[in-house]
Amino acid sequence: MRTDDTGWSVGLDIGGTKTLAVLLDPTGAPGAQVRLPTERGADAVVDTAATAAADLLARADLGADQLTGIGIGLPGIVDPGTGRVEHAVNLGIAAGVPLADLVSRALDGRLNGRRGSGPVPVRLENDLNAAALGAAHLRGDDDGDLAFLALGTGLAAGLVLDGRLHRGAGGAAGEIGHLIYLPGGRPCPCGQHGCLEQYASGSALRAAWPGPGDRPAPVALFEAAAAGDPAALGVQQDFAEAVATAVRVLLLTTDVAHVVIGGGVSELGAPLLQVVRARLDHAAGTSRFLASMRMAERVDLAPRGVPVGAVGAALVGRKEP
Amino acid sequence: MRTDDTGWSVGLDIGGTKTLAVLLDPTGAPGAQVRLPTERGADAVVDTAATAAADLLARADLGADQLTGIGIGLPGIVDPGTGRVEHAVNLGIAAGVPLADLVSRALDGRLNGRRGSGPVPVRLENDLNAAALGAAHLRGDDDGDLAFLALGTGLAAGLVLDGRLHRGAGGAAGEIGHLIYLPGGRPCPCGQHGCLEQYASGSALRAAWPGPGDRPAPVALFEAAAAGDPAALGVQQDFAEAVATAVRVLLLTTDVAHVVIGGGVSELGAPLLQVVRARLDHAAGTSRFLASMRMAERVDLAPRGVPVGAVGAALVGRKEP
Repeated sequence: MRTDDTGWSVGLDIGGTKTLAVLLDPTGAPGAQVRLPTERGADAVVDTAATAAADLLARADLGADQLTGIGIGLPGIVDPGTGRVEHAVNLGIAAGVPLADLVSRALDGRLNGRRGSGPVPVRLENDLNAAALGAAHLRGDDDGDLAFLALGTGLAAGLVLDGRLHRGAGGAAGEIGHLIYLPGGRPCPCGQHGCLEQYASGSALRAAWPGPGDRPAPVALFEAAAAGDPAALGVQQDFAEAVATAVRVLLLTTDVAHVVIGGGVSELGAPLLQVVRARLDHAAGTSRFLASMRMAERVDLAPRGVPVGAVGAALVGRKEP
Repeated sequence: MRTDDTGWSVGLDIGGTKTLAVLLDPTGAPGAQVRLPTERGADAVVDTAATAAADLLARADLGADQLTGIGIGLPGIVDPGTGRVEHAVNLGIAAGVPLADLVSRALDGRLNGRRGSGPVPVRLENDLNAAALGAAHLRGDDDGDLAFLALGTGLAAGLVLDGRLHRGAGGAAGEIGHLIYLPGGRPCPCGQHGCLEQYASGSALRAAWPGPGDRPAPVALFEAAAAGDPAALGVQQDFAEAVATAVRVLLLTTDVAHVVIGGGVSELGAPLLQVVRARLDHAAGTSRFLASMRMAERVDLAPRGVPVGAVGAALVGRKEP
């Protein structure tokens, strides 16, 4: 997705607990940000989205007519063509809700009477697809290809291939969390046993390291491992190997130039990257073929302090789907 | 790849043992075919390619000036931009051989003095990429997306996504044969243990069912299984599960609309498709998510009696890379 189209845009990344919004200027640089709690249900989601967008416009003193569009990334299956949500269980939105239109109208109502009001086009995208676009953009590589591997509650990826979003025939591209990692292993809500998601996700870490509950499980685990706790080191190693497997699946299937690790677990930062790269290097040490693919150096973390998903959503807002 | 470009083209699928050539008419329909044994080394490969192309032109009474181009699919890594081979061990061709130019010149020498002679552009492509284009074309779906899953000596796939060949950053897209299927399992020439290729390929079947040697291992195995041999049924089931895993990797990562199974093992025909679909249906029976993806009905066999790889190569011959 090129970013040489002029105009401001707003991007919203609506997650299960929080909504992040960002304003993208005509050069594609992210500016003001808003963070609001997400409340469940279509009415609440629409209200929060309109509030965030209106707030960003007011802060930058922009009229609606200066906005190319608004993009919304949300966890679920959406129809980018119609702006309808097909499936967004985590947000409490039923199938068939015309979310794009509802947000456009709610914002219009809110801006009524101000200068430059009028309906702004709103476009929907799956949140990981939006994040993949955002990650490519923030690398300065809008025409490149990469996978955004989200280690959150679950495990899945968004794919930008040759500069274009790759959604797949049924919007299921990147659903690698439901490949079998350990036959007969942990039960997965999808119905299978041993799904990769049960070993390489935030939920997997919480299950494997329930430990003292005053901090997030990934943080507690990595602190214990850094302190030399043998049990923590074992859990950390198993987790790193599962994440490395996800990276290998992405690289051996699509050979994207880069895999960018995001999602809540990625807030661990450098120590996470280090253990994942170590497992990739270990495998490369056993195989000249794998070594030739230089996987460790192709993996990176999503940038900190920038809402990658919201930036990607703002790029979606600039374009017809 | 659209096929509304006018002009005839020749496609060559150069494999380790045989070279298949086909003439594609201006409407994109395959016509005359030639089959020659492949001999190792750049000189022999060039000679065979020129012979096959000259033969097809003579049979259709076409001059070189009526040919848009010649495409060559070969097992290895090629640079479609320069027409040089980077890596083609199975053909005995060293890196850096300008194969496209050599074939173009050899054909020109052979046609010298006949009507309409002059150098014909020759383009190279990896054989599985060419086969993926051919499979999409033969489905009448040049703008669609599919994976061509080759069960041959090894296991790998070619990908056509949204109507375009997806080679990957380093030409390694589709190399799913080197994902780990069974940790600590059979050694793979790549250096790892337990690669999927060691369980889902022609070589895997030969290793698992060395049996009476008067027919190919896949045929002998499937006949014994059809006759109710319990050992054969077990090997067949394990093989089908490994192939089903390859299909799931492709569908959950790229969500291509179709997976077309080709390669030598696919000559087993309907019984192969049946056991693979049965394993996919079995998994779908455990998971609503998998069931929603309707994997079994998205898998098919490459068409019989048409050289899919050569047809795809002829499409490559029509286009600038």
